[in-house]
Amino acid sequence: MTLLDDIHHPPDLRQLKLEQLPQVCDDVREYLIDTLATVGGHFASNLGVVELTVALHYVLNTPEDKLIWDVGHQIYPHKILTGRKELLRSVRRKGGLSGFPKREESVYDLYNTGHAGTSISQLLGEAMARDRLKLSHTCACVIGDASIASGMAFEALNHGGHAQTDCIVVLNDNDMSISKNVGALNQYLNRLITSPAYNKWKKLWYSILMWLPVIGPVFQLFSRKLERTFKDLFMPGSLFSDFGFRYIGPVDGHDVLELVDVLRKARELKGPILIHAYTQKGKGYIPAENDPIVYHSVTKFNREDGSMPGKGSKSRIAFSDIVGETLCDIVEKNERVVVITPAMIEGSGLRSLADKFPDRVMDVGIAEQHSMAFAGGLASGGAIPYLCIYSTFMNRAYDQLIEDVALMNFPVKIVVDRGGCVGPDGETHQGLYDLGVLLSCPNVRVYAPATGGELKGFLKFAERDMQGPIAVRFPKDTCDRESLDPDKLPDVTRIRPEISPGGKDLCILAVGAMWETAIAVQKELASRGVFATVLGVRWIRPLDTDFISKTLADTDHFVILEDSYIHSSAASFIRWNLPSEINSKHLHTFAFPTESIPHGTRDEILHDYGLSKEAVLQNLLGRPEFTQAVPIARQA
Amino acid sequence: MTLLDDIHHPPDLRQLKLEQLPQVCDDVREYLIDTLATVGGHFASNLGVVELTVALHYVLNTPEDKLIWDVGHQIYPHKILTGRKELLRSVRRKGGLSGFPKREESVYDLYNTGHAGTSISQLLGEAMARDRLKLSHTCACVIGDASIASGMAFEALNHGGHAQTDCIVVLNDNDMSISKNVGALNQYLNRLITSPAYNKWKKLWYSILMWLPVIGPVFQLFSRKLERTFKDLFMPGSLFSDFGFRYIGPVDGHDVLELVDVLRKARELKGPILIHAYTQKGKGYIPAENDPIVYHSVTKFNREDGSMPGKGSKSRIAFSDIVGETLCDIVEKNERVVVITPAMIEGSGLRSLADKFPDRVMDVGIAEQHSMAFAGGLASGGAIPYLCIYSTFMNRAYDQLIEDVALMNFPVKIVVDRGGCVGPDGETHQGLYDLGVLLSCPNVRVYAPATGGELKGFLKFAERDMQGPIAVRFPKDTCDRESLDPDKLPDVTRIRPEISPGGKDLCILAVGAMWETAIAVQKELASRGVFATVLGVRWIRPLDTDFISKTLADTDHFVILEDSYIHSSAASFIRWNLPSEINSKHLHTFAFPTESIPHGTRDEILHDYGLSKEAVLQNLLGRPEFTQAVPIARQA
Repeated sequence: MTLLDDIHHPPDLRQLKLEQLPQVCDDVREYLIDTLATVGGHFASNLGVVELTVALHYVLNTPEDKLIWDVGHQIYPHKILTGRKELLRSVRRKGGLSGFPKREESVYDLYNTGHAGTSISQLLGEAMARDRLKLSHTCACVIGDASIASGMAFEALNHGGHAQTDCIVVLNDNDMSISKNVGALNQYLNRLITSPAYNKWKKLWYSILMWLPVIGPVFQLFSRKLERTFKDLFMPGSLFSDFGFRYIGPVDGHDVLELVDVLRKARELKGPILIHAYTQKGKGYIPAENDPIVYHSVTKFNREDGSMPGKGSKSRIAFSDIVGETLCDIVEKNERVVVITPAMIEGSGLRSLADKFPDRVMDVGIAEQHSMAFAGGLASGGAIPYLCIYSTFMNRAYDQLIEDVALMNFPVKIVVDRGGCVGPDGETHQGLYDLGVLLSCPNVRVYAPATGGELKGFLKFAERDMQGPIAVRFPKDTCDRESLDPDKLPDVTRIRPEISPGGKDLCILAVGAMWETAIAVQKELASRGVFATVLGVRWIRPLDTDFISKTLADTDHFVILEDSYIHSSAASFIRWNLPSEINSKHLHTFAFPTESIPHGTRDEILHDYGLSKEAVLQNLLGRPEFTQAVPIARQA
Repeated sequence: MTLLDDIHHPPDLRQLKLEQLPQVCDDVREYLIDTLATVGGHFASNLGVVELTVALHYVLNTPEDKLIWDVGHQIYPHKILTGRKELLRSVRRKGGLSGFPKREESVYDLYNTGHAGTSISQLLGEAMARDRLKLSHTCACVIGDASIASGMAFEALNHGGHAQTDCIVVLNDNDMSISKNVGALNQYLNRLITSPAYNKWKKLWYSILMWLPVIGPVFQLFSRKLERTFKDLFMPGSLFSDFGFRYIGPVDGHDVLELVDVLRKARELKGPILIHAYTQKGKGYIPAENDPIVYHSVTKFNREDGSMPGKGSKSRIAFSDIVGETLCDIVEKNERVVVITPAMIEGSGLRSLADKFPDRVMDVGIAEQHSMAFAGGLASGGAIPYLCIYSTFMNRAYDQLIEDVALMNFPVKIVVDRGGCVGPDGETHQGLYDLGVLLSCPNVRVYAPATGGELKGFLKFAERDMQGPIAVRFPKDTCDRESLDPDKLPDVTRIRPEISPGGKDLCILAVGAMWETAIAVQKELASRGVFATVLGVRWIRPLDTDFISKTLADTDHFVILEDSYIHSSAASFIRWNLPSEINSKHLHTFAFPTESIPHGTRDEILHDYGLSKEAVLQNLLGRPEFTQAVPIARQA
């Protein structure tokens, strides 16, 4: 029997005595390790916020008080304490708990998040709405040191410090994004934590800070000025005070009693407060403490030694890994090439490249806007930049893609990873916008490989291509290793789609990696007497309209098959380029409807939305065009 | 004969003696005032950077040294000194000089800019490309205090301070964006300039800073640490030093000799430098100094007293002004309503609203990302937020629109100003993306009014609508006052398009404000014997597909007329919703091709791209469908 067994929601936690909290933290941590060893999920960041989560729900009167989690992959302890302990086993599985905060799951989850740096904006929104409605609850958010360095978090700090609204920002400083953290702000935070001068005066400073509201209204009149004077004396580095936030810290983020103490006092203070808590990612589980990058997100693992079953087969390789391997080659041979990533070294397959050529891979932090304009600057200056970015995060750089790359026709190579359905990360990470985004920009050429060999061929081709911006888009998936044979690399300069001839009943236009599905569908259709040709569209812009039109002129109907939103699709672009008489043969486009697409495995979600081989077949064979076609074909 | 007469490009300037520079500055300023009094253009910001521009081109060896201008509406003195003095008379006119930097005009213009905060990213790109290519030129940028507070500039500072690349950021601090500047950073900068403590030690600090490189390599080893110690002693507030930038300032930005001195020394220093120069917008022309907001951008004016001819007619009103007037009403009556603008109080027509209800209009600065997520937070917290944003700047908030508003279905009212062709601001400001952007997002309803009355009606309707996000999109244009009659306000809840029946030869689907053009075309066509019906599409999502399909079923052909990029259009959305047999009647969509669209008046550009009444007519009458139709109709 643990204390946690009796905590079904936060009011239960608040019944406990202060001195029981360390035990609660231990229980939560045990439960986390046990559960995730069995089912997998985000891990190291969750172990790091156990004490913070317990302290916040203990001090704040949630859900009346508002508690906002930035990004949200550190939400598991919060889910455990807010009635979803048992459900944690289902996390990231289809129909199960989301790996991120989710309003539909609980009144304690205020925002469905996933992208970094939004919480301070939301905090200010909640706090100013509260003031407008003349309410008086506390509003707080928890944001990591990687997230707070994103541009939009800074915009919010700049607004909040000026507006002086009552609110609490808890900075969870673990010196990590998914990778090791970067940036000047990070270095600054490290100095704050490690400087003996700051720590020497910290206790005195706390006392003064905490007394301020008590000393009374007369003193209050002078307090901002007094505070600044004291700050200059004792805490000269406090950048957050310069921004109008009252800085409290650094605080040990694993000392739940100190956290409760600080939070209680902060709750009584006026104006915007920033509490700087330092924590350790993976805290309490040695293998994760030692390697928080590997344990950021885990499959099921052996609790005893932390070992995880090896994943993947020898015949398959992730598209991301092909990027890393190929860029390694390119960087080695060409001094002008640089690779940029906004905080996704691991995810984009760049780890070994970064280890081998540390000055050639530029991790700019969670800074997508900057990363794109910076790539434009590098190209303008004569370097050859590859920007490796996730589809979902490229939306943050849409304006810079237009203004700072596309309109000036800079030869930036944009490597768009996780285009299409992403699987377990779910709705906030879906890569369903990128085709619409890229095709809406002048000058940007767009390639969607179907095989690893094509991706590799493209990356090599792009090195020599100086015509303008060029983008490649591929899914969070694996592909056959076979196609990577250097002797068999395809010629990616050929614009014409691949063709797999099969008949005139139907033509399937398969965009990028949907080729594999289309070929499987083609085979099955043939066995049912429907004879289809498949066109594999790799180059979307430029598009070989002539060839496609001619092929379609020869078939009765056509469908398009792609892994993106219907209203942000290659299909729109393709159909704009076809003449009306060809367009009238369009039967259907298989794509995602423009709505929130939930989590599950990639295969499950593709199937649920009609994009698996089986679903496409079922759809096609249910159509009058083909129920009629079948008997005729059989007669023949 | 002035000194300026002999300056045809920067090397001429560099031939002059230092003591002649103040005279050059006077000449440039005179020339600016004289020219802009005659032709109009961006004014106050250009007067503010005369000395900076002269000093930069005097010290830097442009164009080998790289000089980057943020935003770029302060580029006129630069254009005057780089061979475009005479051409300045053509600024912002069709075929004339751009009002922003433009690579196509001069090798001295490195980036086509227009959106704020990009220059530090570009600076780092140029500097790191230089290092990669083993070159040694100086790289510098000039950025305003409003721009440096944008998120992406912060992301770049964070990267540059960490990377320690040699480069110079000149902060042009005039305490203004277009409006009076806001934000905590701005308050901080004001403290730097006005604090006697900083200024007292400034000279000593300069001396130490400047000596550092001279003292030699041994000293250099310790210099960063030494610098930090000195900084803590004498300049405790230097946030930029915390960010890893060597801070120099504040410097009088109108003292050209001091500027030259500081720049020469900065050029010798290693690592990233930030020079903080304070300037005055409108400097040297009293009416502009007194009211830099009015003189931000001018029409031609009377040089003697600064008076500008009143513009506009009594019967027409700008769409933006309708927003301001209507929101004033709404804010007054409903305590929950708040209006958000990212630094566009004037442009969005909100000045009198902000004066009347200062705590209800939240100017968050150049912070589009934050503004959108903040609006989501306000809605979540129970307030009723209207986000007034320019179409072109909304691209910066695309990710937040998706993730922090649309996916959670928050009832944010998005008021998209300057949708469509913007005229004189040209390529970097075109509002040609917003329809694609809005329609690619789940849950966002989209309305495009054709009249001022419809815009007004929409804004009032939106106040009570809590179904989810809702956006209204209108051009940078005027409309008839007549439609604003409160007794005649249209019912905007009706989804059905307006219909102007006229015949079955053709149906023109006119999106939003293109209605006026379509009606004019309809009339002309009828006089030539082509009988067309016009459908005015206001609600794009939801779309009354049934009604449109029925109407189109009854006509021979249809065209779509809209003011946006063809690949980011309402037309794509509309056509997806129509059945194939109807779609096959599609003749043409009148929209902008997805390429860079230049400056000129709105009418000129619409005409050049086939969207004026005359151009549409010419296109239609040149088609075989109607050259045939004409005689038949005449026979009848």
